[in-house]
Amino acid sequence: MAVYTEVSDEELEEFVAGYDIGEVLSFKGIAEGVENSNYLLQTDRGNYILTLYEKRTKPEDLPFFLGLMEHLAARGLACPTPLHGRDGQSLRELCGRPAAIVTFLTGMSARRLTLAHCAGLGAAMAEMHLKGADFPQSRSNDLSVSGWRPLFETARARADEVSPGLAAYIEAELTALERDWPTALPMGLIHADLFPDNVFFRADKATQEEKVSGLIDFYFACTDALAYDIAICLNAWCFEPDGSFNATKAMLMLNAYRKVRPLSVDELQALPLLARGAAMRFLLTRLYDWLNTPAGAFVKRKDPLEYYRKLRFHQGITGPGAYGIE
Amino acid sequence: MAVYTEVSDEELEEFVAGYDIGEVLSFKGIAEGVENSNYLLQTDRGNYILTLYEKRTKPEDLPFFLGLMEHLAARGLACPTPLHGRDGQSLRELCGRPAAIVTFLTGMSARRLTLAHCAGLGAAMAEMHLKGADFPQSRSNDLSVSGWRPLFETARARADEVSPGLAAYIEAELTALERDWPTALPMGLIHADLFPDNVFFRADKATQEEKVSGLIDFYFACTDALAYDIAICLNAWCFEPDGSFNATKAMLMLNAYRKVRPLSVDELQALPLLARGAAMRFLLTRLYDWLNTPAGAFVKRKDPLEYYRKLRFHQGITGPGAYGIE
Repeated sequence: MAVYTEVSDEELEEFVAGYDIGEVLSFKGIAEGVENSNYLLQTDRGNYILTLYEKRTKPEDLPFFLGLMEHLAARGLACPTPLHGRDGQSLRELCGRPAAIVTFLTGMSARRLTLAHCAGLGAAMAEMHLKGADFPQSRSNDLSVSGWRPLFETARARADEVSPGLAAYIEAELTALERDWPTALPMGLIHADLFPDNVFFRADKATQEEKVSGLIDFYFACTDALAYDIAICLNAWCFEPDGSFNATKAMLMLNAYRKVRPLSVDELQALPLLARGAAMRFLLTRLYDWLNTPAGAFVKRKDPLEYYRKLRFHQGITGPGAYGIE
Repeated sequence: MAVYTEVSDEELEEFVAGYDIGEVLSFKGIAEGVENSNYLLQTDRGNYILTLYEKRTKPEDLPFFLGLMEHLAARGLACPTPLHGRDGQSLRELCGRPAAIVTFLTGMSARRLTLAHCAGLGAAMAEMHLKGADFPQSRSNDLSVSGWRPLFETARARADEVSPGLAAYIEAELTALERDWPTALPMGLIHADLFPDNVFFRADKATQEEKVSGLIDFYFACTDALAYDIAICLNAWCFEPDGSFNATKAMLMLNAYRKVRPLSVDELQALPLLARGAAMRFLLTRLYDWLNTPAGAFVKRKDPLEYYRKLRFHQGITGPGAYGIE
């Protein structure tokens, strides 16, 4: 939930006049996204999302993110499409911050994940990987294996406050991940944050089945092993609230993915290790946030140990068969 | 900015099925209102606001608030209209909380107040007073003169932390207000929180002049002296950010009001005292919130001394002429 920057009527009017989108009817801050300020902008032509990029998004990365959304949307992926202003630019400035207007997607993120959601996600992710293949820009993943140890160093001294022995556990697992991390898997454009919040669904009118209506929030997108995106989703979509791993969800997600983009033997074999890495990435960022969020602040801190437990699960399996696939 | 209650897809679907409003296309928490959880609900029939009433709104007051909005809307006032479910009820339950769906109003609140805004407000407020006159329910104003001393008692011991001498100042002023508070002014339905946040404007297509497009947030509405609503607006709309009083804004607001609903001599004479009372009410609630909001919390605390300074202004004038009127 986030609106960090207040936009005055005059500033909004001037900004919107830079686009050919008609007259503003309504403008409301929306409680979505934790990194940036998002507004729902309604004009007599339609609905749009106006985003002001706040501190945690690097301005130099914005052309990559906006260019990528435009690239994917042009190839028919349901995702927000940046609008171009009358000057041809999609990245503009408002209230002293980088800002953009993108198209509005209907649908809602799923709060209670079903098998149908996981299957839909798998197919949509594979479609995104295929459609991102010829995106000409690249951006390294600064939250992949080489970024984890520096992040850990900032939290190491206090990690045992969260759980006794956590620092030693992370140290050992980091060493293993750094040693074994795969480097020869197919690379491409990954979303890198495809959590349930970032996938919209709508019920099909005829069958009432939930179908993906769009992917949003490409502000962690980068160039990395495509299977690493899958590994993130194994963590984010396939565990139940009680911590148990739902292999049926994993199987449906993976099989739906493979129908659109087949996975090589190497990719399948790498999944358990990639899933450990993905769990480590979210364990470390949550640990950092946990230790650096003032007590009493109104931000809901996410439990780092949820990802410690997920990591333990992936360590304990003998191969990708545990994900329900052959 | 507020979304306190998370609504799951299943709960939303079941709730919306209780209304004849079509299929849900989108559902977003909006950063509006500090007391309740508000969602923008888009269906294939139109846009609506779904509100879940949180702790600070008393459930027993909700039939008054919803009945009032329906009453005013039926008389043509631009304000949210509660929808009735298939069972005939407008007040329903969602996620264990009282909840209602109301119509969506276009327009935006003014962030930089102009003379046109103040004049528009005056006319809209008078229209609301006239249209509320035959609303059959009543609700006492628990934040009027009899409620101030109990509120002060909860903050008295620490008031001087905010400004040395503040406790003694409030004590003396409260005594004067309790002694002199008028009791014979025309009573009726007042909004009681008609701050700029709660008034929407849209530019007239032909003249580009800002026109009121609606009044929102009736959750402080009550039965009280009509002129007290005006006194609140003198405080909320007619001071500049630097603390100076803009008598032109006051004059335009009052004259626009009087064109729709004439003010009696008694009402005009009472305005300075009522304005002191209104300033006292917001000084006290802000003081309470200031002293009871944990430091570091992510809620923007509003400066109580802004209303101390406004109160001082109203104490210093010799009569309603200071508001630009005869």
